[in-house]
Amino acid sequence: MTVQTTPVRMVLDCDTGVDDTLAILYAALHPAVDLLGVGSVWGNVDVDTATGNSLHTVHLAGRPDIPVARGAAGPLTGAPPVFAYHVHGRDGQGNAGTGRAVGRPAGETAAEQIIRLVRAHPGEVEVVAVGPLTNLALALGLCPQLPGMVRGVTIMGGAALAPGNVTEVAEANIWCDPEAAAAVFRAPWPLTMVGLDVTMRTTLDDGHRARLAAGGSIGGYVSDILDHYLGYFASVAFGERRSCMHDVLAVAVAAGTLVPTLAPTVRAFVETGDGPTRGQTVCDLRGMYMGFPPQDGASCRVVLQTDPAFADEVVALIAGAGDSAVPLDREEHA
Amino acid sequence: MTVQTTPVRMVLDCDTGVDDTLAILYAALHPAVDLLGVGSVWGNVDVDTATGNSLHTVHLAGRPDIPVARGAAGPLTGAPPVFAYHVHGRDGQGNAGTGRAVGRPAGETAAEQIIRLVRAHPGEVEVVAVGPLTNLALALGLCPQLPGMVRGVTIMGGAALAPGNVTEVAEANIWCDPEAAAAVFRAPWPLTMVGLDVTMRTTLDDGHRARLAAGGSIGGYVSDILDHYLGYFASVAFGERRSCMHDVLAVAVAAGTLVPTLAPTVRAFVETGDGPTRGQTVCDLRGMYMGFPPQDGASCRVVLQTDPAFADEVVALIAGAGDSAVPLDREEHA
Repeated sequence: MTVQTTPVRMVLDCDTGVDDTLAILYAALHPAVDLLGVGSVWGNVDVDTATGNSLHTVHLAGRPDIPVARGAAGPLTGAPPVFAYHVHGRDGQGNAGTGRAVGRPAGETAAEQIIRLVRAHPGEVEVVAVGPLTNLALALGLCPQLPGMVRGVTIMGGAALAPGNVTEVAEANIWCDPEAAAAVFRAPWPLTMVGLDVTMRTTLDDGHRARLAAGGSIGGYVSDILDHYLGYFASVAFGERRSCMHDVLAVAVAAGTLVPTLAPTVRAFVETGDGPTRGQTVCDLRGMYMGFPPQDGASCRVVLQTDPAFADEVVALIAGAGDSAVPLDREEHA
Repeated sequence: MTVQTTPVRMVLDCDTGVDDTLAILYAALHPAVDLLGVGSVWGNVDVDTATGNSLHTVHLAGRPDIPVARGAAGPLTGAPPVFAYHVHGRDGQGNAGTGRAVGRPAGETAAEQIIRLVRAHPGEVEVVAVGPLTNLALALGLCPQLPGMVRGVTIMGGAALAPGNVTEVAEANIWCDPEAAAAVFRAPWPLTMVGLDVTMRTTLDDGHRARLAAGGSIGGYVSDILDHYLGYFASVAFGERRSCMHDVLAVAVAAGTLVPTLAPTVRAFVETGDGPTRGQTVCDLRGMYMGFPPQDGASCRVVLQTDPAFADEVVALIAGAGDSAVPLDREEHA
């Protein structure tokens, strides 16, 4: 595990379902990350559930000092949001959450929090977004100077050469709000796209769950919430109990703790038309047969290969995190 | 080299540039193919040049009995055709053709010829199209019963998981006439798509050219026309003198002489919208992580992997074809 001398300052924007929980834990626990704040957004679940889960997770990690700001409840266009409870459970925690409300959201929106934290550390903050990109698009609208003030933006989202997971070509985070994603892809900041090309290739199985369960109560909790998630992926993607760990890959790539083995910087944009390719991330990878020579206008680093053994590092970090600072028995509702 | 007991009856539709010439030669020379007719279409070059090149090629192969029918001069919509002389040379033969007009086209259009030949051998004819799909769409329009009468349709065209070669996502044959391609993908016939996923991976180099040149005069001619083609691919695709051999792969897959090592049958369609993904072949490959389970409504066999050593077989066949039946010195124009 590579640890940089200076931790990367990070704001993490999440639609906190199961894999987002791992991403927050990784960012909160790993010494290579200085997690300044978490924003919540609609997506996997509604934004209130996502906010509650994010608060629960920072407390779980023993980091109640990390502010959690509530963000957008639906896409930029005002179209009705569509959630993925079948993937993440009705509580966004694989139906294995505690049901406990812990802490309170910050007094600003997630978009405002991004702007405030970036302004506080000019040139130093990596904005990592692992849900629909609505909050980032709103932040761009509120503060057009934002691209010149960030260290960079890393997203979990999109698919370059891999199939989509909502449509044949569209990945869920992009498909949920293509107009917001288009704004994020167009903005003049260094963008890193950690999409299905790699996130479908780094997976957790019941062996990993057993190692988590053998750790402290934090690991035990993560093992519990992964049960439903592995079952979902077994039925729709892998044909066996094995799940992606999408979001944490983006955090680790942004932190420099997961170094891509292939990640060309190319032109990329999001299809926002109403046709069947809506929500596709169109990446210009035509240079692949000659080792991706430099492209004019290229600003998107598309991560195409990472080491699948990264899953073991995540499991080791969380299994070794010890015991939770919050009660993990399920809250009983009268 | 696998040779089937009964040769596959084939009609071959070409926009005869350099790689089409190899495809016609392979189909005309290989004992596994019974080449009933060749149709020409606009695409790499204008349809008259394509027709002349196809006639020249069947004569070159010593098969003046194979009829060549002239087809469409531009796309279905009436939009102006766009050609690729920079790829195939002004004569479609790498600027190394003989300039000789040999033989005469048939007295029917390429679409009419497809229908006539299919009707003459119900259930037996494989229609192989390696240019824009305009003639096939016209044949469907003229004879809606056609899908029930063919053995199948195999195209060189499209890109499933590989980048496009005209736009980020569109391959040239589909991009040239997306509406025609959409009709071909929608029609209820068994369709095999041999696209950039494999054709960019099977290439010819100057070593192959030397083996062709060491054969008879047919091999010598093919070596000559490949010179410009290798130069083109060096500059735009590979960074070294190496060319694709796109079209012959479709002929060989149709003939059964090249057996794909991965070719799932899935739902597939062509994007005909006016946006940036126009001309994309959208293939539903979401089942790839569980070995492509059967899909309702799937009728397109998408070839994703073939053995690149197939190039050697093509070179051996053509190098061993002996001497041309037509003079191969360049016709001098006053």
